[in-house]
Amino acid sequence: MLDIEALLALPRYAGQDRETLNQTIEAAHQLALDQYLPHNRKSDLQEPQMVNGKVELIPEIAAAVAAFNDAGFIGMYADTDDGGLQMPFLATSICDAIFAAANPGTVAYPLLARAAANLLKAHANADQQARYMRPIIEGRFFGTMCLSEPQAGSSLGDIKTLAEPIGDGRYKIRGAKMWISAGDHELGENIVHLVLAKIVGAPPGVKGISLFIVPRFRLDDEGRPAERNDVVLAGLNHKMGQRGSVNTFLKFGENDDCTGELVGEPHQGLAYMFHMMNEERIGVGMGAVMQGYVGYRYSLQYARERQQGRHADQRDPSAAPVAIIEHADIRRMLLAQRAAVEGSFALGLYAAWLVDRTEHAGPSEGRDEEAELLDLLTPVIKAWCSDHCLRANELAIQILGGYGYTREYPVEQCYRDNRINPIHEGSNGIQALDLLGRKAGQANGRGLRALLTRIEQCCATASEFDDLRAHAEALKRYAAALGRTSATLLQAMAAGQIRSTLANAHHYLQAVGDLCIGWMWLWQALALKRSPRQQEPGFVAGKLGTLRYFFQVELPRIEHALALLASADDSALSMPVDGF
Amino acid sequence: MLDIEALLALPRYAGQDRETLNQTIEAAHQLALDQYLPHNRKSDLQEPQMVNGKVELIPEIAAAVAAFNDAGFIGMYADTDDGGLQMPFLATSICDAIFAAANPGTVAYPLLARAAANLLKAHANADQQARYMRPIIEGRFFGTMCLSEPQAGSSLGDIKTLAEPIGDGRYKIRGAKMWISAGDHELGENIVHLVLAKIVGAPPGVKGISLFIVPRFRLDDEGRPAERNDVVLAGLNHKMGQRGSVNTFLKFGENDDCTGELVGEPHQGLAYMFHMMNEERIGVGMGAVMQGYVGYRYSLQYARERQQGRHADQRDPSAAPVAIIEHADIRRMLLAQRAAVEGSFALGLYAAWLVDRTEHAGPSEGRDEEAELLDLLTPVIKAWCSDHCLRANELAIQILGGYGYTREYPVEQCYRDNRINPIHEGSNGIQALDLLGRKAGQANGRGLRALLTRIEQCCATASEFDDLRAHAEALKRYAAALGRTSATLLQAMAAGQIRSTLANAHHYLQAVGDLCIGWMWLWQALALKRSPRQQEPGFVAGKLGTLRYFFQVELPRIEHALALLASADDSALSMPVDGF
Repeated sequence: MLDIEALLALPRYAGQDRETLNQTIEAAHQLALDQYLPHNRKSDLQEPQMVNGKVELIPEIAAAVAAFNDAGFIGMYADTDDGGLQMPFLATSICDAIFAAANPGTVAYPLLARAAANLLKAHANADQQARYMRPIIEGRFFGTMCLSEPQAGSSLGDIKTLAEPIGDGRYKIRGAKMWISAGDHELGENIVHLVLAKIVGAPPGVKGISLFIVPRFRLDDEGRPAERNDVVLAGLNHKMGQRGSVNTFLKFGENDDCTGELVGEPHQGLAYMFHMMNEERIGVGMGAVMQGYVGYRYSLQYARERQQGRHADQRDPSAAPVAIIEHADIRRMLLAQRAAVEGSFALGLYAAWLVDRTEHAGPSEGRDEEAELLDLLTPVIKAWCSDHCLRANELAIQILGGYGYTREYPVEQCYRDNRINPIHEGSNGIQALDLLGRKAGQANGRGLRALLTRIEQCCATASEFDDLRAHAEALKRYAAALGRTSATLLQAMAAGQIRSTLANAHHYLQAVGDLCIGWMWLWQALALKRSPRQQEPGFVAGKLGTLRYFFQVELPRIEHALALLASADDSALSMPVDGF
Repeated sequence: MLDIEALLALPRYAGQDRETLNQTIEAAHQLALDQYLPHNRKSDLQEPQMVNGKVELIPEIAAAVAAFNDAGFIGMYADTDDGGLQMPFLATSICDAIFAAANPGTVAYPLLARAAANLLKAHANADQQARYMRPIIEGRFFGTMCLSEPQAGSSLGDIKTLAEPIGDGRYKIRGAKMWISAGDHELGENIVHLVLAKIVGAPPGVKGISLFIVPRFRLDDEGRPAERNDVVLAGLNHKMGQRGSVNTFLKFGENDDCTGELVGEPHQGLAYMFHMMNEERIGVGMGAVMQGYVGYRYSLQYARERQQGRHADQRDPSAAPVAIIEHADIRRMLLAQRAAVEGSFALGLYAAWLVDRTEHAGPSEGRDEEAELLDLLTPVIKAWCSDHCLRANELAIQILGGYGYTREYPVEQCYRDNRINPIHEGSNGIQALDLLGRKAGQANGRGLRALLTRIEQCCATASEFDDLRAHAEALKRYAAALGRTSATLLQAMAAGQIRSTLANAHHYLQAVGDLCIGWMWLWQALALKRSPRQQEPGFVAGKLGTLRYFFQVELPRIEHALALLASADDSALSMPVDGF
């Protein structure tokens, strides 16, 4: 599907080839099987403990994280000048996805560290990069993102953590941060907390937020971790799933001795953080996809093996039972899972491809338009994929029946591990506001136009094939309808009807997501026409059958969503508070 | 809504009045608060253990169960001649629902015992009733339903447990039973296992299944538990939720010393069991509703209290945050929960009302038609309500955000406890086959006609009110469409297109369920017109607002479901097995 050559032709990837990428992905697969999958269950059963103020993890986690770092995955996307492998973001995303499928809790430690390094690369100065980013890429330091506070989860403008300048670009930090993944542990020499705080006297709201580096151990003059900074582990959060990834409540400056360094300019912290949050949001969507995938594959295997019942029209009770994959309702549940997870997987990888293009192509190569498209797709990938791939896990449990409900089988853990994805990195309701309230109209609607144009091009090409024409025409019709509805909504908001229009942002995101997933299925079918796998009848039937399922059973719901949007449905807003 | 007087006028309930029913319900409420709710969390954390072959439960369970039995709830529906209170099934269902909301795991023990007693009442002989049923109603014995086996969960025709006659109506039993709730414990003097087995030489399939009483302790001549029967606890199942209710794997006759008594006639066991399974299915639906209700109420309270963010059109960051119930997407998630749980609650209670009418009214009072209607609604209540009330729990978690994902808050347990309901007592896929393949056409379609007629009557009455007319007309239109689609499907099956028609049974059940829930909301609005609560503006706005939400946002999906049914969508069936 994706034009890899267009990436490898970028100057940044000179010297890379498909073979190297494939070998790296294969190495990730092997490492995931060897050191991530085996303790995925144990991590769930033996969650991190706080013992004498320290976090205790099962030992498998440290070994797996060290192996990840030693193999270079921590620096896979980083520049070679910074000690990295400088491989495409797309290939990195595929490797990350493989680890996330095997063990989402353990891989969170290095992935958070890498996210912190990426942020420092983009916004910290050279000295900070040398002292904090480089050791992360070397696998010695780890990192966190400290945004939420107990009273301010989704609403970052209301954070209360304060920073008081003490000279040299250093600040005294005081505050409390909630939901900090990998907030404390003994996996490395140091932890680089990236902390949002307000400098004393800063403007209210998001325009007064700055970003600070707050290390667990302050560095000495040679950059070695020295005395302990005043960052205290105040407690652990005990979660429904993702139990291997320790989630903490941290207190900064309780003893008035927490120092941090400002990153970049004052009051620009949220913008810096957003640069990385966007990549993280794609990562969350992909993490959801992978748990969806695991559930799909597991329930598929079970459905092939489990013998139970007979066909509805088979009256002979002494006939042998059939595998449950023969039953239509089991097939429906398999198709629903597959349509969501493989469609989402394609969309997530397309976004990763766009990240490479956006960060490393030139403006003449369409970079700016692709940046807008990526901005538009980001909330869709985060929210649609996490919603629907979580739903897929529910179906995986259903296929396994009573066995699926037990902890002897892995699908209930898939659900629990996946349940966080519609919540964190901006809840899905917030993603919908971001999509309709910001991204759809951003840059005069350029990203949305790019999306609709690309979908139309795909439909035009697909129309040339007899077996795809009807689907292509349906998708084209829906795309046009979405375009019209979007114009109406943007006009309404421009005319000041902001609250009433955004009240239906959820339906808008679902409609855009449905359209994108339909596009991904049509695109996959097109790619298949020129693929050697066209020779594999089962593979072809599977892809085309799932496309057909999605277009016949699921995609038509877009019509009702668009109707709700067109009518500016007010059933949520019009309910008085005391009516609930 | 429900015509209680029509129940209290039945001869069986002579002497009962509303006041007594209300007092009993209030007593259930108080007991649930005092002895069920407090250990609901502890039960989840400290699940039953198998120690030296015995089940160990936390002590609160025994105390709560004893209090339930002592207060008479165990015999609430049983005849006074049998030691019961002879109260309506409707009132019993309400009390059960209250306990199920507070602690679904603990109440499972007495409710299963009561279910066993009900079955014995219907099908056992007087001597068996005296020896096994009466002690259950007295709270001394408990009971189980032993249907599934490891290789035969949904497909009971394939059970392998054997019964060999040894004279006196006694049989030697040998086999293994899986998923047996409350299969072993020390709560009472004895456990009455109701076991499906095949008498040696019986016909294959479901026509060869007989029902046996297999006590944990054999009774002596005076009916006292004496020597141990050969029923062995082989293991516990460790579940995602409902952990307080022990779920067991039992082996019968491993040492060739398990004796049981035949209930009723040979080979009629499945019919006997179904009598009770139908009531259990309503109970499962109601259990799902109550977990949905708990999640709704909890997330509503949270949404009222949690201050976060501002309105989308509120630009001043120094303005005070608003309660999240102000946000449209939170309202949407509250409305979706409420539409499902209160609509389902009404439907479940209507079914309970029908049980009373069906079991205790005379044929001239419309009993036979109502029995058909109840048969039709049973799979809808089991499956639609468990599907949608589970979805409601997912939304409750979402409203609580990160807090909802932690085990410090109750909503994640609601989800886990509720997740079993779409699976047990016949998976929801099987309910759909039951509805379309059996109930819709049963008795020449009398149940379906009764449903559509009652809906039409409700619509006709509602059309007289200006604020309900549009909804009434929409519901009437959908009911007519469902009638036409049903006729088409029944004709197709009569013409032999069984497999292709039943392939879409899921969509049929969803459509019937959507229609029924729409009906329940319209009916509630009508009932409100003549209720004293008409004077409470918040209550009225809440009911009408939720009705409006359901009719505008959710109910229209019925059109797509009916279109899929009308087109005999074959996307599930046409996929080759090797395409998955």
